[in-house]
Amino acid sequence: MASPKPVQTGRRPILLGTASTVAAASTAQRAIAQSRTPQAPLASWNEGEAKQAILDFVRDTTNPSSRHFVAPEDRIATFDQDGTLWVEHPLYTQAMFALDRVHSLVLDNPEWRTQEPFSTVLSNDLARTARFTERDWAEIVFRTHAGMSQAAFREIVLRWIATAKHPRFKRKYTELIYQPMIELLDWLQVNQFETFIVTGGGQDFVRSYCQRVYGIPTQRVIGSSIATKFEINNGTPELVRLPKLFFNDNYDGKAIGIDLFIGRRPYAAFGNSTGDRQMLEWTGAGDGARLKMLVYHDDPVREYAYGPAGGLADTAIGTFDQSLLDEAKMRSWTVVSMKNDWKRIFAFE
Amino acid sequence: MASPKPVQTGRRPILLGTASTVAAASTAQRAIAQSRTPQAPLASWNEGEAKQAILDFVRDTTNPSSRHFVAPEDRIATFDQDGTLWVEHPLYTQAMFALDRVHSLVLDNPEWRTQEPFSTVLSNDLARTARFTERDWAEIVFRTHAGMSQAAFREIVLRWIATAKHPRFKRKYTELIYQPMIELLDWLQVNQFETFIVTGGGQDFVRSYCQRVYGIPTQRVIGSSIATKFEINNGTPELVRLPKLFFNDNYDGKAIGIDLFIGRRPYAAFGNSTGDRQMLEWTGAGDGARLKMLVYHDDPVREYAYGPAGGLADTAIGTFDQSLLDEAKMRSWTVVSMKNDWKRIFAFE
Repeated sequence: MASPKPVQTGRRPILLGTASTVAAASTAQRAIAQSRTPQAPLASWNEGEAKQAILDFVRDTTNPSSRHFVAPEDRIATFDQDGTLWVEHPLYTQAMFALDRVHSLVLDNPEWRTQEPFSTVLSNDLARTARFTERDWAEIVFRTHAGMSQAAFREIVLRWIATAKHPRFKRKYTELIYQPMIELLDWLQVNQFETFIVTGGGQDFVRSYCQRVYGIPTQRVIGSSIATKFEINNGTPELVRLPKLFFNDNYDGKAIGIDLFIGRRPYAAFGNSTGDRQMLEWTGAGDGARLKMLVYHDDPVREYAYGPAGGLADTAIGTFDQSLLDEAKMRSWTVVSMKNDWKRIFAFE
Repeated sequence: MASPKPVQTGRRPILLGTASTVAAASTAQRAIAQSRTPQAPLASWNEGEAKQAILDFVRDTTNPSSRHFVAPEDRIATFDQDGTLWVEHPLYTQAMFALDRVHSLVLDNPEWRTQEPFSTVLSNDLARTARFTERDWAEIVFRTHAGMSQAAFREIVLRWIATAKHPRFKRKYTELIYQPMIELLDWLQVNQFETFIVTGGGQDFVRSYCQRVYGIPTQRVIGSSIATKFEINNGTPELVRLPKLFFNDNYDGKAIGIDLFIGRRPYAAFGNSTGDRQMLEWTGAGDGARLKMLVYHDDPVREYAYGPAGGLADTAIGTFDQSLLDEAKMRSWTVVSMKNDWKRIFAFE
């Protein structure tokens, strides 16, 4: 898995508080730090409560004389992916991948042409596909994501994501990452926070591109996973993917997954949907300063607008319902308005 | 979990190839690096094949002009704990903890006095206890390690391990770590390897002391675990431990666990028993330079001697059987003789 020209290393240099002390970073790392972390942090954020909450939190937890100071080894921050770090509409990127896999694999599985949920997929009816049940998706995932080795699966994802394009933006999915969130990831990392992705999506799917796209190494991606089996074939060990759910990293699974993989409570957590509720509750239950944030998709022009919280369109993809908004108010979680808090959404704008 | 005086931070500074370039480390970190990594690495190792194999491997994988150079973000090393990093005889430390828990909890469970396996435990018959089946241990673990919150369990372990002593050495278990292996952990970390513990023992047990004892943060401890449940009690979320196995991180589970938690193949793996076989096989199946090592307990004077490989005493605790020794020879794994390769075993010697 060695990449000859790593865009970013898995380990960031330990910086002593601010972006200016990059003495130890290699030249390449320094160049990246400069290009990704400009003089002023969070450059793509408008002034306002959300930006201020981040700046205050980081200052408060990294200032040794603050009563909310957090030792570097305890600085953990967790990020949902879909709808928090990149676009999730009209359908999760991994779902798009699964649909493409159905189209490729139908030659070997002709019975799919008349068998649900595959026949709906093959008819390219995205609207109906967006209403698939979890059971429908499980069936599609088990038939398109299992049966091969872990290494082979990663290769399949890599090949797909290198070329597949988003139906509206006509760009690669990996270009549809939110620039303000990348700056937030960087600002936390510069301040010695260890950043994790905690996704309801497939752990191995995200791990195929996390280093290149987010500068986050595979061991800091926690996600849903299927079971694997250790086999020795012709003397060589392999891990084979089985059509069986191992861990569902969504809802309460996010709090459980954080404890299982990290073993300490985050000081900051970022999400955008009801699937992130328990992650934020778990984060907020710790003492001291804890930053809890929800990204609210209220910008139909530059991205999408959906809820149904606040009267926006209802959706099964990244649902942000009224009860979540109510809880955010009650528990003083910060809600980020994509329309008002973000100067730009994508780097290419 | 913030410790006021951390012995070591979870993140090591990025050093540029050798121990001499510690410019970026804070004063505290530098002091630690100097105290734990003396001028010559592996000071407690005798000259010989094992020591040379480590030095050659580190040189080969960190030298940018070597054809076996490994990018820093791919430098992963995994260590078994029991029998590899610390003493496991006459019984695993966690088993000792479980037995003590049975003694404490019998007041609330008087039926244990006549019920196996508890009655054997209560009779203090260590020899019979050492022959317990996996099923016996599961029953003991479910009754002594579950039913409380994760936070409460960590507290119980912390209190126990702060005072409990080994029956032969009359020292705390955390003092019975192998000094040569601590030097090895340090030498790898100084050379930008990310070191993980991959234990068949309980993940949450080890996570209660890993930072203090090994300088390894909780998120780099992979172990066996029981299921937890997310509950909100009086408005506060808790993770409650259930009497149900979630993941068995032993044998093939070690390869599966490494892939699940880390997502990339180690370049170095260290074990001492048949439970580590698949971890070493998985590590060795990668390309380039891979270091695979087994610690062989052949020093009855300073520690213990058991196998049964090589004609040493048979044991159910940390079994190193002949087939493992044969495989080590066939696959060119390095076998470390505690008697011959280690100048000293414990720091207190």
